[in-house]
Amino acid sequence: MRSLVEIIAAKRDGATNSPQDITRFVKGLTEGEVADYQMAAWLMAVYFRGLDDNETTALTHAMLHSGRVLDLSSVPGIKVDKHSTGGVGDKVSIALAPLVAACGVPVPMVSGRGLGHTGGTLDKLEAIPGFRTELPARDFARIVRDVGCCMIGQTAEIAPADKRIYALRDVTATVECIPLIVASILSKKLAEGIDALVLDVKVGRGAFMKDEARARALAQALVSVGTRAGKKVVGLLTDMESPLGAAVGNAIETREALDILAEAAPADVTECTLRLGEEMLVAGGIAAPGREARDKLGAAIANGTAARVAEKMIEAQGGDPRVVGDRSRLAIATEEIVIESKHGGFVARCDALAVGLASVALGAGRSRADQAVDHGVGIRLEKKPGDAVARGEPLARVFVRHRSKAAADVDRVREAFSVQDTPPPPRPLVLDRIVAANST
Amino acid sequence: MRSLVEIIAAKRDGATNSPQDITRFVKGLTEGEVADYQMAAWLMAVYFRGLDDNETTALTHAMLHSGRVLDLSSVPGIKVDKHSTGGVGDKVSIALAPLVAACGVPVPMVSGRGLGHTGGTLDKLEAIPGFRTELPARDFARIVRDVGCCMIGQTAEIAPADKRIYALRDVTATVECIPLIVASILSKKLAEGIDALVLDVKVGRGAFMKDEARARALAQALVSVGTRAGKKVVGLLTDMESPLGAAVGNAIETREALDILAEAAPADVTECTLRLGEEMLVAGGIAAPGREARDKLGAAIANGTAARVAEKMIEAQGGDPRVVGDRSRLAIATEEIVIESKHGGFVARCDALAVGLASVALGAGRSRADQAVDHGVGIRLEKKPGDAVARGEPLARVFVRHRSKAAADVDRVREAFSVQDTPPPPRPLVLDRIVAANST
Repeated sequence: MRSLVEIIAAKRDGATNSPQDITRFVKGLTEGEVADYQMAAWLMAVYFRGLDDNETTALTHAMLHSGRVLDLSSVPGIKVDKHSTGGVGDKVSIALAPLVAACGVPVPMVSGRGLGHTGGTLDKLEAIPGFRTELPARDFARIVRDVGCCMIGQTAEIAPADKRIYALRDVTATVECIPLIVASILSKKLAEGIDALVLDVKVGRGAFMKDEARARALAQALVSVGTRAGKKVVGLLTDMESPLGAAVGNAIETREALDILAEAAPADVTECTLRLGEEMLVAGGIAAPGREARDKLGAAIANGTAARVAEKMIEAQGGDPRVVGDRSRLAIATEEIVIESKHGGFVARCDALAVGLASVALGAGRSRADQAVDHGVGIRLEKKPGDAVARGEPLARVFVRHRSKAAADVDRVREAFSVQDTPPPPRPLVLDRIVAANST
Repeated sequence: MRSLVEIIAAKRDGATNSPQDITRFVKGLTEGEVADYQMAAWLMAVYFRGLDDNETTALTHAMLHSGRVLDLSSVPGIKVDKHSTGGVGDKVSIALAPLVAACGVPVPMVSGRGLGHTGGTLDKLEAIPGFRTELPARDFARIVRDVGCCMIGQTAEIAPADKRIYALRDVTATVECIPLIVASILSKKLAEGIDALVLDVKVGRGAFMKDEARARALAQALVSVGTRAGKKVVGLLTDMESPLGAAVGNAIETREALDILAEAAPADVTECTLRLGEEMLVAGGIAAPGREARDKLGAAIANGTAARVAEKMIEAQGGDPRVVGDRSRLAIATEEIVIESKHGGFVARCDALAVGLASVALGAGRSRADQAVDHGVGIRLEKKPGDAVARGEPLARVFVRHRSKAAADVDRVREAFSVQDTPPPPRPLVLDRIVAANST
């Protein structure tokens, strides 16, 4: 048997680690045979040398099986989840899970919290009075079966090796490494007991991956490794140069997510939800791609069944279901600062990163994992790139607790915008669709 | 101030770490601010990206000042030490220190133990009955002043950060990295309170560096960084394809080292000692290079002053000084196995690595740092590369405790030799002399 040092040295020298070696390394970390410093050295060697799809699959499996795989065998049907790599204003999950469930595809969803400039689904859901994101695995399975969808946070039982390794990566400068990102995402998602996964890989200023080539490489690796792990996986590359939709914050984003189910949300966030929903219905085996899938989603919104599933899910998770029909029950901070355009023309740009950082600074996000968030503060964009704007017309509204303390954050939002004389070229929302090599 | 993660990320991305950042990292390790896993990640990044001479100097200083620098201000004269990167049969220090001291240059020497296939000076010295290698710093300074030389082991006070970092490198596959080797060697040597250092960088099968280019790069880095640290440093690249001298073991090597002072040792080990001694006398400012230095060394051997210094040093360190005049007092295992040549011809090769590993397997060395060694077992080479040998003539003698248990080790020594019909081309002992860029 190779020693741990030999396994690290092999990766350091550009060789391939066997699945057995990788499993032993991950198992060893949780069982105490492998020290943190050995894992750190291996992670840095992986940063330089990479992992091939076979090694990444082994790493994913080892991290997945460090904990418990949720048992959803009591839920009939093909279970499909969606994962977004994170962006600003990305509240899609909150509408998408009940929408897809309403069409007949069970959606077991384990989500995360906001960190850095990106928001997190759990923080947005907790803006709903009473909503509980920590549920026992048994309740999770029951709600998915009875309601069609359930949205919870990662428990201590899910992929504990991922938690341990992620914490190490965070303090050893080994976060930005595609195979490690892939294994981290997939180990958690596969622990949900899903059959298929639709990935929303964000690209641009407000995304983790700022450039399209890196985002594409991440999407391809996720699809390839997820497929090797026996799941049906498809990925969309979507634009994250400017925030998605108009709302950035927590309660304000949950309002907008529920607006999607009432046909009252901005076009881009609605379209993003429908494109991802189409992929989920196809993956769930209940609709052909294109027209059939889109019609089913449209009907579930129009006839109110999607909103009904949202109400049932919220109620099942302890929340006040009346927020679905009356979004004003989601409380937003009452101090409102209007940012007016200094020039007439067209909005050329609204920097998602700047808006995301302003939202964090207002209190809607966190810079350390143990911080609490303010669900009420947030930003509403009144104009988006491509929109015409008159001089003095509002570009955005910022909702704060104390007007006097928000000046710097408001300036940040103001500076995120640029206005020019001519309309900018339109940007497509979906840049590409990534499928497994031998799939469609 | 940069965060620790930013310091690691900068090195990871090929940037230069500032001396302040490097100092903070090393200081942080000993003080608890930097975790082992962060140091491990940084070490692996250094393995890939290297350190320039400026960074290596900063690392050396930080490791040096993690502990105590011995105070030899009470010892007059330019204090000079020698360091060998390690080989098989390298017993030079035991003759060299008293020889150079006898010529008037004080030699404060902190040596190591054998690990892996290479022997260690401390293990060989401890073959002398009563000899103590652990002495308080005060006694060390006094003996250097009174006798001219003293040879001890590394104390806990010397460069503790080096000990900690070396232990980490050992388990994270980051040992074979020239700037880390340089900082480790120099931090310990500079802690001796020396003014000048002569390096013996070994090249070949029995050396840490198997190929000349890597050995040369190590020698150049050692000379450059040592010079930047304000010391006079010169390096010799010397051959380590076959063992140095005829003796491999502990007591048997100490016998041969003392033979050097009695003009009774093999030519190669005597010449190696004199070449290094010449460099030390020149560095110590008491002789011009070449004839003058060689004459002084020759006189100190011929008139017995070198042997007298050896006796005084041994006595001052608790050992039996009679071993100098009567080397048979150094006990050697009594079971003797003769390896005879199966063919007549010329010895083409005697693989130092194979002989070194056989010696360890016999019990003369250790594979773990906490193992005890057997001072009596060992090997005497009767023939060396270039020597003519008749069929049935002895190639080597192996001295063991139990004849029946030694068969595999004896075979290893036998297989280290190859005999051919024609004499091999002669190999020079000293391959090159490495000096600082602006020195001679």
